[in-house]
Amino acid sequence: MESAAQFTLSCPFPIQDYPQILMAHGGGGRLMHQLLDNMFLPAFSGSTLPSPHDASVFQAGNTRLAMTTDSYVVRPMCFPGGNLGSLAVHGTVNDLAMAGARPLYLSAGFIIEEGLRMETLWQIVSSMREAANAAGVSIITGDTKVVDKGKGDGLFINTTGVGIVEHPLSISPQSVQAGDAVLVSGDVGRHGMAIMAVREGLAFESTIESDSASLVLPVLDLLRQGLEIHCMRDLTRGGLTSVLNEIADASQLGISVEEKHIPVRGDVRAACEILGLDPLQVACEGRFAVFLPQSQIEAALEILRRHQVSAGATHIGKVTQPSPAPRVTLRSVIGAQRILDMPSGEQLPRIC
Amino acid sequence: MESAAQFTLSCPFPIQDYPQILMAHGGGGRLMHQLLDNMFLPAFSGSTLPSPHDASVFQAGNTRLAMTTDSYVVRPMCFPGGNLGSLAVHGTVNDLAMAGARPLYLSAGFIIEEGLRMETLWQIVSSMREAANAAGVSIITGDTKVVDKGKGDGLFINTTGVGIVEHPLSISPQSVQAGDAVLVSGDVGRHGMAIMAVREGLAFESTIESDSASLVLPVLDLLRQGLEIHCMRDLTRGGLTSVLNEIADASQLGISVEEKHIPVRGDVRAACEILGLDPLQVACEGRFAVFLPQSQIEAALEILRRHQVSAGATHIGKVTQPSPAPRVTLRSVIGAQRILDMPSGEQLPRIC
Repeated sequence: MESAAQFTLSCPFPIQDYPQILMAHGGGGRLMHQLLDNMFLPAFSGSTLPSPHDASVFQAGNTRLAMTTDSYVVRPMCFPGGNLGSLAVHGTVNDLAMAGARPLYLSAGFIIEEGLRMETLWQIVSSMREAANAAGVSIITGDTKVVDKGKGDGLFINTTGVGIVEHPLSISPQSVQAGDAVLVSGDVGRHGMAIMAVREGLAFESTIESDSASLVLPVLDLLRQGLEIHCMRDLTRGGLTSVLNEIADASQLGISVEEKHIPVRGDVRAACEILGLDPLQVACEGRFAVFLPQSQIEAALEILRRHQVSAGATHIGKVTQPSPAPRVTLRSVIGAQRILDMPSGEQLPRIC
Repeated sequence: MESAAQFTLSCPFPIQDYPQILMAHGGGGRLMHQLLDNMFLPAFSGSTLPSPHDASVFQAGNTRLAMTTDSYVVRPMCFPGGNLGSLAVHGTVNDLAMAGARPLYLSAGFIIEEGLRMETLWQIVSSMREAANAAGVSIITGDTKVVDKGKGDGLFINTTGVGIVEHPLSISPQSVQAGDAVLVSGDVGRHGMAIMAVREGLAFESTIESDSASLVLPVLDLLRQGLEIHCMRDLTRGGLTSVLNEIADASQLGISVEEKHIPVRGDVRAACEILGLDPLQVACEGRFAVFLPQSQIEAALEILRRHQVSAGATHIGKVTQPSPAPRVTLRSVIGAQRILDMPSGEQLPRIC
């Protein structure tokens, strides 16, 4: 270890409160945001990490590009509707799409535990290829590391993506305005519950399949049709609740949504009830929220519903002035208002 | 798992011979190359992975860019001369530099094991920032995943880099020609032996420090001075021997080097003898080989020696016609010729 004297930065993270990493530091909730805000962002702010979310946009020559990275550690590695490989492609192309970028290239980094069955590796690698082809991206560079048995967990995959930004919009939480409409692209919570149902051995009449899918086509279609998108965000760790809270915080506005307009499938709701989970806090891997002017609701829904992956798109609410603080409220089916707080993040480890 | 019928690709990898991943599949030697050539390259060839090594170059708009990825799993996480964080920056900027690209941006993906000390994380993150600043790159996007205690090993880091190619050269093994000179930028084998000395508890009069460092400055200087570089490669997993064999294979030429011109420090040589290792097969993380016309040897050495990181540059040999097959030969200090075979890769696990 380098001597302490070399560390000129003092750590803004309250190490005394959390001397060790907890599972919740990866859960997408409050503790993860505290770690990002007080550890990673300050350390990299000299070399600016502009946004803790999704993709970063930069200029190279006279081309506007976006870059994003994600590591995938989901368990089990294979689940109804996908596997670690397809998920690693979908997650990263979706993050590029959320920045309004057309995904071009991916890198793939494999951390393999000694003893992994070669056949499993091949199936996961094959799924990556299929998912990449379907999303129109090329995997152009890769890396393989092997760690000793007991020092990993079968396979972890990092994918990093580069895309090109071909529109003049500034798509970010800072572009969200009071009065904007909030749409979601389909039923929520399915990916997380597909994983949890396998882990917990829940059996339903039909298997809950993950919603893991590429969102590239509907997003590029929205952009091509010239819709004035203010912000997009895929509903991953922490689910819809976490995304709405992040956008409310970053834009310093309020968001109010109607429970009856948020699509949740019956089997997902039932599985959530059994496990004591709120489907609005459960991750999807093929769903996103869009913020745009009220006047464009119908046009946007019409475009989204053309694509299979977003055929279930609905208008769920609107952006409001903050009152009193930026916060997210839900009007329940029986008409009661409640605050949707940022989930603390302990509930669903390793779903992506 | 998706049904077998979905996998239209048949696997070119001989699964019956190696039904499970071995440590050697990550070692930089023969088994790793077999895995790359028969598993990853065929799977991704539809979505082309043009080069198994270093960075891939692509066009975006009218800008030529390079992209590279690496995951870092070194143990111990902190070692004389660096730590996992600084290594994760140096390794990736060096891969960009080897493609003749000026590194611009990095992503950083963290896979953290539950229970990692927060102070260790901060030290590693701080070192990344320092290394990034020194190499002139910005870390612009990141990701954090936490895995259960016992399912990881403290911390793994993936860094992926994007750089810009600002010269007209085609730097690749295919550009290497018979008659080219081979230079190395300094003493070899130091990073691997710094790690092994800690692991094996070897004590010498002075500590062996890793050579982990950014190679960006000397490489950009060579390019700026207009040298006609045919190929560059950093001497990582498998060391100088692995790199020379890769280039000989890819160019279908021979390479002959002189042992007496290859710099190896006395303490590194002594440690290698104790552990039964060949220093030419041991990884560096701040050394590279350059292939260029004989007429430019002196100019290149003069430029390299201006920079501290490459002050010990030497001319070690030349590229020859293949005889009878592409192969690498070493003339020993006593004048005997021997073949330098690709190492099999079992010897030094987890040094990067």
